Amino acid sequence: METSEIIGTLAGIFTTIAVIPQIFKAIRTDKVDDISPLFFSTLVLGVGLWTVYGILKCDWPIIITNGISFMLNLTMIGIYLKNKFYGNKHI
Amino acid sequence: METSEIIGTLAGIFTTIAVIPQIFKAIRTDKVDDISPLFFSTLVLGVGLWTVYGILKCDWPIIITNGISFMLNLTMIGIYLKNKFYGNKHI
Repeated sequence: METSEIIGTLAGIFTTIAVIPQIFKAIRTDKVDDISPLFFSTLVLGVGLWTVYGILKCDWPIIITNGISFMLNLTMIGIYLKNKFYGNKHI
Repeated sequence: METSEIIGTLAGIFTTIAVIPQIFKAIRTDKVDDISPLFFSTLVLGVGLWTVYGILKCDWPIIITNGISFMLNLTMIGIYLKNKFYGNKHI
C-alpha cells in the first residue's frame, strides 16, 4: 500500500468518525445550546454532495466515508432538534 | 464543466465553510461548554491528513479545501481553549 493511500485512508477514517464524540456528549449531557445548527446543516449538505460525487465517479472510498459521515451528522441534527423541540427531558 | 465537477466543487465549498457559523456563534456567545473538543481535534487531524494527501498527489482542489478547513477548525479549537483557560471574560 502506497504512503498516500495509507494517509488517505487514515484521513477518511478520522473525518468520518470525528463527529461521534460530539454525538455522545450531546446524548450524555442533553445540552446542545452552544452548537450551531447551521454548522451541521452545511456539513450534512457538503458530505451529502461528496457522496453523490462518489456515486457519479464510482469511487467507493468516497461513497463509504461520506455516506457514513452523512448519517452521523444527520444524527447530530436529529439530537439537536429533539433537544430544541422536546426540551431536556428524556423521551 | 462536467456535472460531477460542479457537485465536487460545491461539496468542497460546503464542507470547507461549514464550521464558520460555529466559530461566529462561539465568539458571539463566548460559550463552548456543549462542544466536544475531541470532535474538533479529530476533525483537524483528519483534514490535516487530507491536506498531506493532496500534497502527495499534487491535487490542488484537495489541498486548498482541506488546508482552509484545517485552519478554520484549528481556530475553533483556539476559541474553545481560550474560553476554557481564560473563562468567559473577554481578553
